[in-house]
Amino acid sequence: MNVEKGVNVVIGNQVEFGNNVMLGHNVIIYDGVKIGSNVVVQDNAVIGKQPTRAKNSARKNEIALSSTVIGDGCIIGTSTIIYAGAILERDVFVADLATVRERVTIGTGTIVGRGVAVENDCQIGAFCKLETNCYITAFSQLGNHVFIAPCVVTTNDNYLARSEERFLKMKGITIADGGRIGANATVLPGILIEEDGTVGAGSVVTRDVKREELVIGAPAKKRREVPQSQLLRNQNHGKGSEVYHCYPHETGMSISN
Amino acid sequence: MNVEKGVNVVIGNQVEFGNNVMLGHNVIIYDGVKIGSNVVVQDNAVIGKQPTRAKNSARKNEIALSSTVIGDGCIIGTSTIIYAGAILERDVFVADLATVRERVTIGTGTIVGRGVAVENDCQIGAFCKLETNCYITAFSQLGNHVFIAPCVVTTNDNYLARSEERFLKMKGITIADGGRIGANATVLPGILIEEDGTVGAGSVVTRDVKREELVIGAPAKKRREVPQSQLLRNQNHGKGSEVYHCYPHETGMSISN
Amino acid sequence: MNVEKGVNVVIGNQVEFGNNVMLGHNVIIYDGVKIGSNVVVQDNAVIGKQPTRAKNSARKNEIALSSTVIGDGCIIGTSTIIYAGAILERDVFVADLATVRERVTIGTGTIVGRGVAVENDCQIGAFCKLETNCYITAFSQLGNHVFIAPCVVTTNDNYLARSEERFLKMKGITIADGGRIGANATVLPGILIEEDGTVGAGSVVTRDVKREELVIGAPAKKRREVPQSQLLRNQNHGKGSEVYHCYPHETGMSISN
Repeated sequence: MNVEKGVNVVIGNQVEFGNNVMLGHNVIIYDGVKIGSNVVVQDNAVIGKQPTRAKNSARKNEIALSSTVIGDGCIIGTSTIIYAGAILERDVFVADLATVRERVTIGTGTIVGRGVAVENDCQIGAFCKLETNCYITAFSQLGNHVFIAPCVVTTNDNYLARSEERFLKMKGITIADGGRIGANATVLPGILIEEDGTVGAGSVVTRDVKREELVIGAPAKKRREVPQSQLLRNQNHGKGSEVYHCYPHETGMSISN
Repeated sequence: MNVEKGVNVVIGNQVEFGNNVMLGHNVIIYDGVKIGSNVVVQDNAVIGKQPTRAKNSARKNEIALSSTVIGDGCIIGTSTIIYAGAILERDVFVADLATVRERVTIGTGTIVGRGVAVENDCQIGAFCKLETNCYITAFSQLGNHVFIAPCVVTTNDNYLARSEERFLKMKGITIADGGRIGANATVLPGILIEEDGTVGAGSVVTRDVKREELVIGAPAKKRREVPQSQLLRNQNHGKGSEVYHCYPHETGMSISN
Repeated sequence: MNVEKGVNVVIGNQVEFGNNVMLGHNVIIYDGVKIGSNVVVQDNAVIGKQPTRAKNSARKNEIALSSTVIGDGCIIGTSTIIYAGAILERDVFVADLATVRERVTIGTGTIVGRGVAVENDCQIGAFCKLETNCYITAFSQLGNHVFIAPCVVTTNDNYLARSEERFLKMKGITIADGGRIGANATVLPGILIEEDGTVGAGSVVTRDVKREELVIGAPAKKRREVPQSQLLRNQNHGKGSEVYHCYPHETGMSISN
């Protein structure tokens, strides 16, 4: 075990570290967090934060969550906040100022961009790219190789916080393997995007998106099939040569870290 | 008085605390801030920041603002920034990475979501929900029980920062009690949303929204009346049983803290 | 040389300071950063951060970038992150929670609003205003006196991260002097906005915007000419009386700091 620490690092009880871990300045790690090997945690990051309730909540004392797990090879950016009960598999890259809430799981090699908010109880697959400032609503499920462009907004409540019905109907979004959403699009609650389904930038998605279909507009309608060259099965990274680790800086993609 | 402090806490002069206050690690509280009882301030929060002017501004030395007031029962999230002269009433919940500017008032029980920016000189009522990453432009006025969905954008300058006229015409938005705006909608300067007026997700609002009217589209047009079950007067929380404190985590609403 | 420091400040090797510099609490300045005179760096800011690669990247050791340069009179807001190799000219104002990536240059007097992300390899001119939470995609070029309203989203990859072609076609946006984009608009990859070209709020820009033309809608189409009173050549600040430094707080513009 070999942990290199910056100044003013705070480490709680029963925190576990693998080999070759680097912790930046002012990093805060709460009780019970498990950090793998070859992990970098950058300045001002907070890991293992318990969710907060209002002080007068009756359930205040019940909610201590299970450990946060940060897999081998993960990079946790500057001023990120990772909640208790989040599980990051191997080589996840969480960029600056992103937040990952409680009971979220994130698969191997996924990139969580700068300023991204992944809300509670989401399941995110492997090799996804969630780009700068996108917003993943609570209870969403994303497959593998999903691409969410910058500033995409997803939702889970068609009732805008009113009526008793909403508690029954609240539903995040579901995106199958290879699904993609263009920049600043808005996706309504409960929407399903099938395999390789693709949404144009700035669209408002009110209906499910079919497999390999490109939809555009407000409300979004089918424009055409996704080009063959863009289908997941025709990409190199769909064939097992995992080159994900060189995307951010070599290609100029809008990854913030 | 009982203040529990994390490591590396900085507290200015003439700061007042009620009973049972918890300050996280690296919290910074500037001169003259008044903090009530049963308040939690989480890690890396900055409270009482003076607004900044360019160094060559003639008015540099005139602008020391009055105190920031954090009411009883407030929770101030991780890496939030609350400016001097902001006043938060009781049980306000400010989630991670939110900013609240100078001369803003926020009513009892309101939730300011993760990453929200409430600009200077806004008045926000009680029991509002300003969801993740929404943007409240300067000089806006929101009533009680207003709901702003994630990533809503409001504006106050139809002149896009040009012409002398704009200084006279600049105007924030006004939302009456129970008004609601859907995710990623854009609201033009000076717009009024009347009681229970509601804007669909992704819309662009160019005209005032009438009482109990649902508008959708770009530009937004009336689609129908808001369903009776969603009117403020038909909600439990409109009748005095204030259940606001159990929303965020029990319902999966998109509150980030 | 006169540097005033808050608590817990971390300063790397070979950092240079001009006269009259103020560093807030918990500020981190990495090796080789050059800071001019009359600069304010606020709490929790990180300056000179090296970009991060996944730990298994073959090029891991090659990428140490040149110095970050912070010009005279700059103000660097709370919890900002400025990467290595960024160059800020005089009197640049970077508001809270903004990030400026590697190899970005920002001209004199430009305001980078609260939460703004300027991605890698952008060139930003003088006296621009990039308002709250706007997103400037990598490899973009902005002239002087450009105005980007809150929450504008720009893009650089029409292929949504798929196909080999995209590496050849990836292109940021270009905005000539005086170009303006309204709140929450989406701009597609490679778009050119000519001098004083203007985009309405909430629009989706799919074609280049001509000189002095106002476009609105999704897709955005020409609505009319920009009013004479709003043309850059008809503004006082186009004539050399640089009043930029009093904008943010005297006018209520949506500047966050």
